[in-house]
Amino acid sequence: MGESPGESSPVGGEVSGIVEQAKELQEAAASLISRTSREEDGLRQRVTSLDSRINALRSSKHTDKLEEEIVRARYVLSEGDAAAFLPSKSHGKFLRMFLGPINVRANRKDVQLKVKEEYNNFRDRTAYLFLFLPSMLLMLRSWIWDGCLPALPVQLYQAWLLYLYTGLALRENILRVNGSDIRPWWIKHHYYAMAMALISLTWEIERGPDCAQKQRGVELFLKWAIMQGVAMILQNRYQRQRLYTRIALGKASRMDVVWGETAGVEGQLLLLCPILFILQGFEAYLGILLLKTAIAGFSSDWQVITCGVLLITMAVGNFANTVQTLVTKSKVKAKIKRGKSRQELNQGSLDKSL
Amino acid sequence: MGESPGESSPVGGEVSGIVEQAKELQEAAASLISRTSREEDGLRQRVTSLDSRINALRSSKHTDKLEEEIVRARYVLSEGDAAAFLPSKSHGKFLRMFLGPINVRANRKDVQLKVKEEYNNFRDRTAYLFLFLPSMLLMLRSWIWDGCLPALPVQLYQAWLLYLYTGLALRENILRVNGSDIRPWWIKHHYYAMAMALISLTWEIERGPDCAQKQRGVELFLKWAIMQGVAMILQNRYQRQRLYTRIALGKASRMDVVWGETAGVEGQLLLLCPILFILQGFEAYLGILLLKTAIAGFSSDWQVITCGVLLITMAVGNFANTVQTLVTKSKVKAKIKRGKSRQELNQGSLDKSL
Repeated sequence: MGESPGESSPVGGEVSGIVEQAKELQEAAASLISRTSREEDGLRQRVTSLDSRINALRSSKHTDKLEEEIVRARYVLSEGDAAAFLPSKSHGKFLRMFLGPINVRANRKDVQLKVKEEYNNFRDRTAYLFLFLPSMLLMLRSWIWDGCLPALPVQLYQAWLLYLYTGLALRENILRVNGSDIRPWWIKHHYYAMAMALISLTWEIERGPDCAQKQRGVELFLKWAIMQGVAMILQNRYQRQRLYTRIALGKASRMDVVWGETAGVEGQLLLLCPILFILQGFEAYLGILLLKTAIAGFSSDWQVITCGVLLITMAVGNFANTVQTLVTKSKVKAKIKRGKSRQELNQGSLDKSL
Repeated sequence: MGESPGESSPVGGEVSGIVEQAKELQEAAASLISRTSREEDGLRQRVTSLDSRINALRSSKHTDKLEEEIVRARYVLSEGDAAAFLPSKSHGKFLRMFLGPINVRANRKDVQLKVKEEYNNFRDRTAYLFLFLPSMLLMLRSWIWDGCLPALPVQLYQAWLLYLYTGLALRENILRVNGSDIRPWWIKHHYYAMAMALISLTWEIERGPDCAQKQRGVELFLKWAIMQGVAMILQNRYQRQRLYTRIALGKASRMDVVWGETAGVEGQLLLLCPILFILQGFEAYLGILLLKTAIAGFSSDWQVITCGVLLITMAVGNFANTVQTLVTKSKVKAKIKRGKSRQELNQGSLDKSL
């Protein structure tokens, strides 16, 4: 564009054209945004009022037929596009602490599903690392490090754990905002795990002649992590399969996240449940072992006591939530056996329990 | 609602009504969402094509008058509602690592401004804690702890630093996605600071007879943090004032974030610049001191060396960025002195430099 510039030159004409166009686009954008938000607000009001009417009806007793209708209305409202206009769950303190007041709710169902898919992929990747990293540390310990772990690799692993649990807690909070009915305990569980990873970073990794004795806690922790990795891989496979089955049956929205300890596909459950209970028992045993060392005065750092208490808390919470889920599940089964409309009821109960 | 349930009862009527209404709302939501996203896509295409035409025109030489027009067109497009439809900046690896593929871009200007306001408030609160916490640690050290810091309070402080820098890095990435032209260095700077906080957590805080000597590094770090707090408070006041001036003059969008080392309000700058340079000098001195201890073999932990290198890197980067901003600013001034249209030019140059 080496032409002499001026109002009448081609460049000049083009330039005055772009200012006009920019103004036009600005006006179009302003009107689109205001119109859209007006329409969205209107729809939001209608959806909210219907939602509260449904909730009011649900709280009272009805015949099976009416109950089915109510469940159907709720299903239509909460599983389709209208769900985007349901009153949003509060973002929660954790998200506000890290991100500020930014909105993380996706309006479109396909975007929400993409988020959920990515969360599943993240957990898959994570599970393999969860199995691989501590196994490698323990193997190197006996092959190269003469039974004595050096500080740096362990601390790198602990830093990775801290990142991982922070990432999981953030993602699960985001999923919750996007309509997933993940059990609050699993998110809380990741807060505790974050605290433990942080504390373990400040924990001295001692070397020396009797380090095998002193590193007993670290060794047990790594073994627990390996078991955790196996359980996570099984859980992920199980949940994905179950989720796809439920989606195929039209029973669930794909936003359901069911961290580990829930029930569904019979065959795999027989394998999963014992592993989960063993894991929880091992977790509690580890916590008690840590408290014992602290009480015996062998190693009275505050880290030992805090980690012990955290591990026991997590074990108890995990156990209680697993049992609760199994109980809910067997209730659902009983209801189905009593011969009610299988599909509707299952939906209604899963809504509350998972 | 204790009435006998049935199709003809009031409850029965209400129930069949809600299913109908839920279906209606579902259809309304689906059509609103598809219509809105179609319209938004159309507008996005038009805005994007105009944006690239403006960029093409900007890269060639024009008379002052035409240049002014181009700047005006760009301003209309990028500062108003149309900006929401400009091609989005990539979310970046950091956000994807922690949050997954969730969209954090706000469509409405008022929401974007709320995010920015909250970021400013977060930084204000932070600055006072930044001043208060290390001061308290140093005071307690001489009053209560006999010149020897215990591990736990220092580690709690370091954990707070890690949270703080993670929160800042996340928020700044979100601001960037929302159209703020924060300099990439300030975000990178917070990644380094996160690494340092993490490393410092693994750093042993030794107690013992010669701990005053051994804790010299920690002491210097705390003193540097106090200075940092003072500088942050000055910066926050200065930037807010400057931002409000610029908004009042219609020169800037409120999404501009100018971390610390930029220029503007003359009087306060005379105070701010020397403090910033002293801070950067002290930061580099601290880094060199750490490397020296490592080389002298007094304390050869990898943490010492890594923190030393990180501090020097941050000092050099901060210095380079401050100088660069000052140079850009003086160029803008020179241009203004050459008598060009003050407002337009200022806008055009600040666009690139801040």
